[in-house]
Amino acid sequence: MQQFRAAIYVTLKPVVNDPQGLAIADGLRHLGYGSVASVRAGKYIVVTLTAHTSQEAEQLVGQMCARLLANPVIEDYRFEVSLQQ
Amino acid sequence: MQQFRAAIYVTLKPVVNDPQGLAIADGLRHLGYGSVASVRAGKYIVVTLTAHTSQEAEQLVGQMCARLLANPVIEDYRFEVSLQQ
Repeated sequence: MQQFRAAIYVTLKPVVNDPQGLAIADGLRHLGYGSVASVRAGKYIVVTLTAHTSQEAEQLVGQMCARLLANPVIEDYRFEVSLQQ
Repeated sequence: MQQFRAAIYVTLKPVVNDPQGLAIADGLRHLGYGSVASVRAGKYIVVTLTAHTSQEAEQLVGQMCARLLANPVIEDYRFEVSLQQ
């Protein structure tokens, strides 16, 4: 068994309203950053797991995203799996 | 002026307790993913901004992270700035 590190990015779909991102954009503009055009806020989740192969790890992480980490109705996700040293 | 896209990753420092990550790890194990060793939860923020050069955009984003997006006492951040097509 080897240990893998999965970096998972969960983002709201582009058509979904993002109040957190709007609030961050407002905050940045109030601090003087008028050049900010837009902000989208998402989640960055790092999962460390054991698996026999990187294919198995990728399959497990894909299932975790679809079942728990992302809401497929309003969110997209992508991930990268790497062997941990 | 050109438009740039900054992908910002904000993570808790390794020594800081991460209740959200612990809750996600518990949830995954209850779903049957016993191979999960640990989970760390962070933020993924995409800022679109205008600047004259990529150096200027990187400098602005660095300031935004230090002043608003990350809490330097408990969080680390890193970011990648790319020219938007």
